[in-house]
Parts: sequence; C-alpha cells; structure tokens
Amino acid sequence: MNQKMQWLRNQMLSLNLQGVIITNPVNIKYLAGINAEGTLLVTRKENIFITDGRYIEYVHSTLTLFDEIIVYDINDLSKDDYENFFMFCENVGFEENYVTYADYKEFIRKYKINNFVETEFMIEKQRMIKDEEELKNIRIACEITDECFSYILSYIKPGMTEKQIANEIEEYYKVRTDGLAFDTIVASGENTSKPHAVPTERKIQDQDIITIDMGCKVNGYCSDMTRTFFVGSIQEKMKKVYDLVLENQLKVGEEYKDGISTKSLTKMVEKNFDLSNYSLIHALGHGVGLEIHEPPYINNRTESTLKENMVVTNEPGIYIAGQFGVRIEDTVQITKFGSINLTKSEKNYIII
Amino acid sequence: MNQKMQWLRNQMLSLNLQGVIITNPVNIKYLAGINAEGTLLVTRKENIFITDGRYIEYVHSTLTLFDEIIVYDINDLSKDDYENFFMFCENVGFEENYVTYADYKEFIRKYKINNFVETEFMIEKQRMIKDEEELKNIRIACEITDECFSYILSYIKPGMTEKQIANEIEEYYKVRTDGLAFDTIVASGENTSKPHAVPTERKIQDQDIITIDMGCKVNGYCSDMTRTFFVGSIQEKMKKVYDLVLENQLKVGEEYKDGISTKSLTKMVEKNFDLSNYSLIHALGHGVGLEIHEPPYINNRTESTLKENMVVTNEPGIYIAGQFGVRIEDTVQITKFGSINLTKSEKNYIII
Repeated sequence: MNQKMQWLRNQMLSLNLQGVIITNPVNIKYLAGINAEGTLLVTRKENIFITDGRYIEYVHSTLTLFDEIIVYDINDLSKDDYENFFMFCENVGFEENYVTYADYKEFIRKYKINNFVETEFMIEKQRMIKDEEELKNIRIACEITDECFSYILSYIKPGMTEKQIANEIEEYYKVRTDGLAFDTIVASGENTSKPHAVPTERKIQDQDIITIDMGCKVNGYCSDMTRTFFVGSIQEKMKKVYDLVLENQLKVGEEYKDGISTKSLTKMVEKNFDLSNYSLIHALGHGVGLEIHEPPYINNRTESTLKENMVVTNEPGIYIAGQFGVRIEDTVQITKFGSINLTKSEKNYIII
Repeated sequence: MNQKMQWLRNQMLSLNLQGVIITNPVNIKYLAGINAEGTLLVTRKENIFITDGRYIEYVHSTLTLFDEIIVYDINDLSKDDYENFFMFCENVGFEENYVTYADYKEFIRKYKINNFVETEFMIEKQRMIKDEEELKNIRIACEITDECFSYILSYIKPGMTEKQIANEIEEYYKVRTDGLAFDTIVASGENTSKPHAVPTERKIQDQDIITIDMGCKVNGYCSDMTRTFFVGSIQEKMKKVYDLVLENQLKVGEEYKDGISTKSLTKMVEKNFDLSNYSLIHALGHGVGLEIHEPPYINNRTESTLKENMVVTNEPGIYIAGQFGVRIEDTVQITKFGSINLTKSEKNYIII
C-alpha cells in the first residue's frame, strides 16, 4: 500500500473510524494517484474505488498491485454490495466540507451507516505539509512560471491586448506543463484596480501599469505568482504604492517560518497599509498544492500556524478604485528557520 | 426585477418559502446575471448579494437599478445582520444538492433559520427550459463549433499529435467565444476506445480513426459535439460499428420530441447495441446550458421527459477495449413536434 493510504489507515485507527468514504477528487488524487470521477472507500479490510465505464480502463492502467485498490464499475454493484461495504463498522468517516447535504442523507441510506462522522479536513490538513515529491513538482511549476514571466516581459509590446498576452502565457505553459493552474489575470491601466480582473480587449499603451497573476500545474501541483510592472516609466503616485506593497511583501517573507501565526502577520500588513490610508482588501495568502487555493488560509479571520514544508503564497496588494492597483505575489516554501521563495522573478521596479 | 428573479419569487410563494439562500454560482448567474463568488439571499422584501472585496466593483458595474439587488461586502456584515435577514421567516429554502453538510449546519446557526427546506433542484428544473435569449447563445456556440470542426478537418495532417489538434481547437474558440465548454477530447487509433480520453502526444497516422468531442461557451452557454472520422480510408470492422452508432443516433434524433420518455429511448439503443454484441457504457445524453452537463439526464436509470425548448445531447457510442471506439454526438433543441440539431456537421463517413 502506498505511504499516503497507509497514513490514512493509521489516522482512522487513532480516530476510531472503521471505514471512510472519500469523494473529494483532489483527496482521491492525493491518496491514490487516481485522476478520475469516483468514490474511494476504505473499509475494514479493503481499499475500493468505485467508478464508471468512462474511467475503468484508465484506472486499471494507472493502479499497480502495490496500490492494493480494488476497482468496481458502479453499474455492477447491487444494493447488497453497498450494504456490505461497512457492515460491522461502528463509525464511518465522511468529508462534511465536500459532501452535499443531499448526498449525506443518501450515503447513510445506501451504505446503511450506523454513525456517520465528520472528519474535519483530516486529509486537507495532511495535504498542507508537502513531501519531497510534491515539493519537486511545485518547484518545477514555479521555475517554469519564472521562465514564462521573463519570456512574456520580452513579448509584450504596446498595442497588444490583455487577452492576447494571457493567451501567450497559456500557450507557453501548455507545451511545457499540464496547463494553467487558474485563469491568468492580465490587467492593464485602470483594470489593475480590480484584484480579480479578467483579461479584456484593452490595448497596452505607453506609460501603462500592468499586473499579471499566473501559474501552471506540474503533475497536478500548482504555482502562483503575481508581478505589477510598467511600460516606459513609472508615475510617482504608482511608485509610492508599489514601494509600500513591496516593503510589506518583503517583511512578510522575512516573517514566514515554522511556528509563526498568520493572523497577526495579516494584521501587521493591514496596519501598515492603514497608516498610509490604504487597505488590504483580500487575504494575504493561501496554501498551494494540488489546488491553487488550499489550506492554510492566511487572512485576518483564520488562526493558522505555518509549519515546515507548507507551501503558501505571500501576496499583499493595494487597489485604488477607478485608478490602478499593485500586487506582488510569490509562492513560498516554509522551512524550520525561515522561508524560500520558489518563484524568484524580479521584484524591484520592472519597466519594459 | 428581472423575469427570472420574478419567477423565483412566485415559486417561493407557491412553496410557502419566505426566504431562500442560493449558493450555486451557476444558479446565481442564471437568476441575477452575476458571475462572481458570493451568496444570493432572497428575503421577504429584498434581493441581496453578499460578496467580497475582489468582486464588489465588478458586481456594481454589472447590476442596474432594474435588477433590484442590494450588494453587501461580506466584511461589513455583523452577526446581527445575518440573524436579521430571515427574521420572521417560517421556511427558508436551500440547495441541498449544492450546499455541503458543513455549510448546512453553519447556515442554520449563522442565519438563525427556523425551518431549512430542501428545494429539490427547483432552479435547475427551471433552467432546463431555455428562453429565446438562451437559445440564441447556444445556437451561436453550436454554429461556431461546426465552423471549428470544418476548419480542423482541413488542419489535421498525419504526424500531428492529439495535443496539437486539441490546442488548435482551443485557439480557434478563444478568439471567437468565451472559450472551451469542457476539455476537448482528441483521441486517435486505439485511444478512441476510451470514452473520456485525454489528448496525448500520439501522432496521427494514415488509416487512423479519430474521435473529437468539442464545445465552446457563448455568454456562458455551452455547445457539445462529437464526430468520429478516418484518415485515408475506413477499415471494414470500423465501418460496421460506425453504421450501427449512426443508425441509432439518427433514430434517437427522430424520437426526440416534447413528451417523450428518455429512459425507454436509452433502453432502445442498449437493446440495438446488445443485438450486435456491443453495449452502451455511458449515458445517451444530457442537458446543455450554462453547464455542459445539466438536467435532464438521459440514461437507463433516470425517468426524464423531454419538453419543448430543452437543449440536450444525443450521443450514442461503442467502445471496444484496446481496439477503437465510435461516438457521434449532436446538441439538439427539443420542439413541440420533433427536434432540431443545433450542431449540423456531416455525419456520413468523413475521410480526410
């Protein structure tokens, strides 16, 4: 059995769970390496993946004997099969943050479950700490993101549209990786004042400010980086905001390390922004892994503590409605004594 | 208030719901035209959209006074605000098929809800019947899909990889539409035996069989079409399977009309395939709209009845493991007296 499934079985033992139903496809990919629709059941004695005709061939070609996972076609399962899976199980765990209320009721009925137990992000919490293989994938995704950004800086010319630049980034990633980790943000001029801008037909002009938020996936693992830069020269008012964002991004980078509480860090940045009459209107960061946004969440509401080998973003930003915005973001690996930026693109003023 | 919100209020009246919480983003887009993360509350007197800093500017720029939707920033809401929204509401509806079990419990606590009522796909059921504007969008998406397919037939040359062809389709869509409705399937040779094949580096060869499953989005509305075709010539064994699939696809197209039961239709195709020792291993079709897969579901388990102005797929397929597969799929509008194929690409043998 692979290490992650073995971890899950140990976890179940310690939580007095005799069975678990896993339906979140990201958790299934994490535990079993399977990238297909279906349900992973961990019963007293077996690991079972229930899928359908579309995936049977693929799943069989992915799994090895070592995985010890039995594959069933959902169409071959009877009412009795379902009722037998968790027979004599006192407690069966489920993902209450993924399973809908309707499925919750349906599972209890279909599997005849005695005591259906919330597992409180058990797997997501484990996913926060990356192993060597996972770190390697994220590192490569970040390297390619740096290379792509460097390429795109030389590619951008006044007259190009935001959409055109976003497409070029997608093309770059597509031939080198599994593709985009999320829809690329390319915002220019006053569009940069929207943190979540969607690329438009607006053309890049001389003296523009541009924000690009980009990332790709390598073996399922994501990278995430944002840079704000300038065409021709920098206006003084933008320089002031840029300096404030960068100063705080660097400060946060210095504070990130094993054991640090992220709520207080967020409050530090909020306070610094407030002192200059700006505000932090989104989270300071988030975990990165198989999902582009995953725990830990780094904001002013959540108490999270960073741990060694977590991978998180550091992304303060300031947005002035109708004018412009600045965001600087890196993907960062937490270590025992500090942190390592996995995205390494230039952060001093970039002028193209 | 727009027609769809007005419909919802009438629906609530007839179900004795004094409030509703809508969290499924597709339903929010459908009802309010808002394409942003957030929660739509319909209370006794008001329509409220709760979102966060990332979307506030966009949402304000989208909504008009006519929409009668009040926008709140989630960070400005107090405990009391939440408790006041549904005060004096006896019954509040929620989307039990979208809301997680954890959120279900959290909503009851946060909004102090008396009686939280399952709404049984109320909005999804309404979404099945398309209005003129929705039909127009789907029609355009289907037209562009036909044009793209015709272009791609002239583009494909032996030596190209499946991935390369899939990328070309994506590029074609990107400059003309909102982009892909789903990940394009380009499968060649024995890869066609996987209904859900992911494009690989396999190169197209002379005498190949190729299946392409493709679709785009126009103003959020999807198209969906599959064709299987051949390079150079058709092998006899493939011809036989192709004929059987096409014959059934045409038969189903003839049967599709207002009032028909889809379970029996699926069973008809299953029987026809069985008679030739093949089987139908996936659904015969599904609704198409804001989502690429939405109700009605057309398979051997679900009792659905087609209605005028539903838009559904018709997609029988046969897959011979390790050898090859054939699928032919159209997006189809149901009418009072029959159906109209909205995708109109050639279905007789295509040889490139």
